Amino acid sequence: MTRYEDDSLSLHTDLYQVNMVETYWRSGMHTRNAVFDLYFRELPFGNGFGVFAGLERVVNFLENFRMTEEDLAYLREAGYGEDFLSYLEELRFTGSVYAMKEGELVFGNEPLLKVEAPLGEAQLIETALLNMVNYQTLIATKAARIKQVTGGNGRAMDFGLRRAQELDAGLWGSRAAFVGGFEVTSNVRAGKVFGLPTAGTHAHSMVQACETEYEAFKMYAEHHTDCVFLVDTYDTLRSGVPNAIKVAEEMGENIRFKGVRLDSGDLAYLSKEARRMLDEAGFTDTQIIASGDLDEYTITNLKSQGAEIDTWGIGTKLITGYDQPALGAVYKLVAIEGDNARMRDTMKIGAKKSGNLEKMTTPGVKNVYRIINTENKRSEGDYVTLAGEEPNEQEELHMFHPVHTYISKKVRNFKAVNLHETIFKDGKLVYSLPSMADIQAYMQSNLPLLWEEYKRSLNPEEYPVDLSPKCWENKVQKMHEIQNEFSQ
Amino acid sequence: MTRYEDDSLSLHTDLYQVNMVETYWRSGMHTRNAVFDLYFRELPFGNGFGVFAGLERVVNFLENFRMTEEDLAYLREAGYGEDFLSYLEELRFTGSVYAMKEGELVFGNEPLLKVEAPLGEAQLIETALLNMVNYQTLIATKAARIKQVTGGNGRAMDFGLRRAQELDAGLWGSRAAFVGGFEVTSNVRAGKVFGLPTAGTHAHSMVQACETEYEAFKMYAEHHTDCVFLVDTYDTLRSGVPNAIKVAEEMGENIRFKGVRLDSGDLAYLSKEARRMLDEAGFTDTQIIASGDLDEYTITNLKSQGAEIDTWGIGTKLITGYDQPALGAVYKLVAIEGDNARMRDTMKIGAKKSGNLEKMTTPGVKNVYRIINTENKRSEGDYVTLAGEEPNEQEELHMFHPVHTYISKKVRNFKAVNLHETIFKDGKLVYSLPSMADIQAYMQSNLPLLWEEYKRSLNPEEYPVDLSPKCWENKVQKMHEIQNEFSQ
Repeated sequence: MTRYEDDSLSLHTDLYQVNMVETYWRSGMHTRNAVFDLYFRELPFGNGFGVFAGLERVVNFLENFRMTEEDLAYLREAGYGEDFLSYLEELRFTGSVYAMKEGELVFGNEPLLKVEAPLGEAQLIETALLNMVNYQTLIATKAARIKQVTGGNGRAMDFGLRRAQELDAGLWGSRAAFVGGFEVTSNVRAGKVFGLPTAGTHAHSMVQACETEYEAFKMYAEHHTDCVFLVDTYDTLRSGVPNAIKVAEEMGENIRFKGVRLDSGDLAYLSKEARRMLDEAGFTDTQIIASGDLDEYTITNLKSQGAEIDTWGIGTKLITGYDQPALGAVYKLVAIEGDNARMRDTMKIGAKKSGNLEKMTTPGVKNVYRIINTENKRSEGDYVTLAGEEPNEQEELHMFHPVHTYISKKVRNFKAVNLHETIFKDGKLVYSLPSMADIQAYMQSNLPLLWEEYKRSLNPEEYPVDLSPKCWENKVQKMHEIQNEFSQ
Repeated sequence: MTRYEDDSLSLHTDLYQVNMVETYWRSGMHTRNAVFDLYFRELPFGNGFGVFAGLERVVNFLENFRMTEEDLAYLREAGYGEDFLSYLEELRFTGSVYAMKEGELVFGNEPLLKVEAPLGEAQLIETALLNMVNYQTLIATKAARIKQVTGGNGRAMDFGLRRAQELDAGLWGSRAAFVGGFEVTSNVRAGKVFGLPTAGTHAHSMVQACETEYEAFKMYAEHHTDCVFLVDTYDTLRSGVPNAIKVAEEMGENIRFKGVRLDSGDLAYLSKEARRMLDEAGFTDTQIIASGDLDEYTITNLKSQGAEIDTWGIGTKLITGYDQPALGAVYKLVAIEGDNARMRDTMKIGAKKSGNLEKMTTPGVKNVYRIINTENKRSEGDYVTLAGEEPNEQEELHMFHPVHTYISKKVRNFKAVNLHETIFKDGKLVYSLPSMADIQAYMQSNLPLLWEEYKRSLNPEEYPVDLSPKCWENKVQKMHEIQNEFSQ
């Protein structure tokens, strides 16, 4: 066993968190109630919607949060005092967490997750929560974006494991891809751990390991019923496809010849030729699986060329979120218990008094509602309110852009759905995690809520995430308070 | 405990690997000796060199490789036969591994790692090895690239944890950044597990949690000797820096006022102003730490503007390898024991008979030598030979580009250093892993081997990775054999 085997995750945090918590503890502030919002500002990949994922990992982390002997020994060595270490030793997560369901369609500047907890606890868990939600939401969103272009019949398969950024990204990335709508993964461990459907037959190396390609296909077919042959090791059309057909003909009913896989070359041309050859040989219900640096752009392009591809194997570009490999979600203090035991809203403005409302945090404890038009069943947008303030479904709702306030509309006949589930209440897990199939089905069932304009992959319309008038006024007022303080 | 807690890593593989291994096992091919090369084709980020990392993780994985009861239960449920499962149950890694040292300067198209093992074993470990080496080498390279621009005095600090692609990437990414030359990390767990130096004081949230910024700094200073204040929560120059100076003056000898951190705004302007203010207050040996979406490009730009920044905190752009988040290394079969018990070289050509030598694999069991000029102590390039063929240091060496063969040179007075260490010999670990400090020092000690032209961040010269004449002829011959087969 090497040194990182019996490692715990509770120190999966930045050192400044530990030093802040020590400061709070020594100042007696650590038990003050604090509320943090976890959110991202901009949707990744230029997509019109995001897909929330990461909650199961967060739940697991918080339930198991405790410093081990090893963790404490390390901190002791680093110079922290025994009194503070005793506090850390006893520390468990005793707060409340409100979050979106996994698979929820999400947008910028709305809290995906809200932590209400004693300041010390809320601070110490920040980094891990961001890490988990940032990555998994990024990949679920990329997967959903890719699924928008593969279309109804095209299956999407996750091939990313070898290119994932280390092991956890492989495991949780495959899960996130499923949340976003992928049908199947090559990742065996994700199959085992999460019950995801897996697939895969053989690689180029098997063809090379045999004296001939024919021999390799034949050997595989002799030991497996379901056969997909990888046909591009030497020459796709002169060798690969003919050998696949030959073996399928020889094996007859002994195998189910499911199709061929193309992993290089001109996929548009090769897939059409392969389709023709397979059809001419009578294998009309075989599939063509394509892979090789695919993403939503190449898929769109291949489809426009009439490529005959049934299953799209997506690796690198999916599992790393290649064109934008970080979501950039943040975790911001929005309210804190003051000296007087009353909650005080807090706000961060940043280095410049630019008056740029977009980059400033939105102070206060908030809820998020999805405003669904009861007539056309489409969503009118999301609506962020201050806690205790509920949209009245009997009245007209005034929705306006939180920065460009002249963009506004009045909505009647709506249902206001609170998007936050209570996950932890005072440290107790009160939410039961859905199955993977349910999460994916939930995501898919919500897509019709969005107009097509929000779902197109290029230049989608901006989905409204509006602040209630109270929430907006509270933000503007706080901003003025802070600005006035430094305007002498 | 939730379902993934007692998980093993041995199924961290693609399903096709399992199906191939089953095929080999049922055909009696699984024990044939096979040789795989792990290499990348192109250096990432347009950099002129790479830095190898990931070996410690690979060693740990191979030492612990075994299917658990749970792994086997999962495969049983998936339909694999008991006979094959018995083989998997007994499976341990019994092969040999030759690899670069961590911290080695590496280049495209040379084996970073070579596995010689029974075919079944070598195949099953492919995905995990690629995953580990791909990510860690990518990040070590990015880190070294950033260190090239921070210069001799500028310290580089890893701030990436919250933006890493899940937990493992945070842990191993921080380690890889250290391999590539970073001085310090915010990551506490990486500090604990690998003994990396850590740093960090407080975040914006601490400033917001107090009634005033002054109060927050004062509170921190009362409980910590080393103080770096984050000064951009409200207004850097009107509030942040003056409050930091005020607290430092009040605390006097009770603290070590190490500096201030800027996390937003115009870092060039703000750092110069902050420097001036600190100097005027007599705090001339304080540091200015800057962060906020930094990478090698913004650092270069800030330095050219005369920014007064001493420590560069790099997060997202480092830990995800933002502008190229995957290395794309592959693992290719280069030789296999044939029916006649003799080794046979193998080659993959790909879909097109394009004659594109670059994309084809290089057949045969190979070694890599670094050819060091004994007069100027610079490297002349790397030289890939067939096993058993050693460059003769007494003779003239003919080095030529493996694709554009007219680019060539004759080298005299050289030392040929074999870059591969023996890591595992017949399943036994025979290599002792160096300390982190030694790995970083090794990387740094090798940088002078490279001419500056290979190390510049923009359009570096291409470092030669040449094939020996024997190795080259073997490749060309194999290619012709394969092409001739399909040229009727």
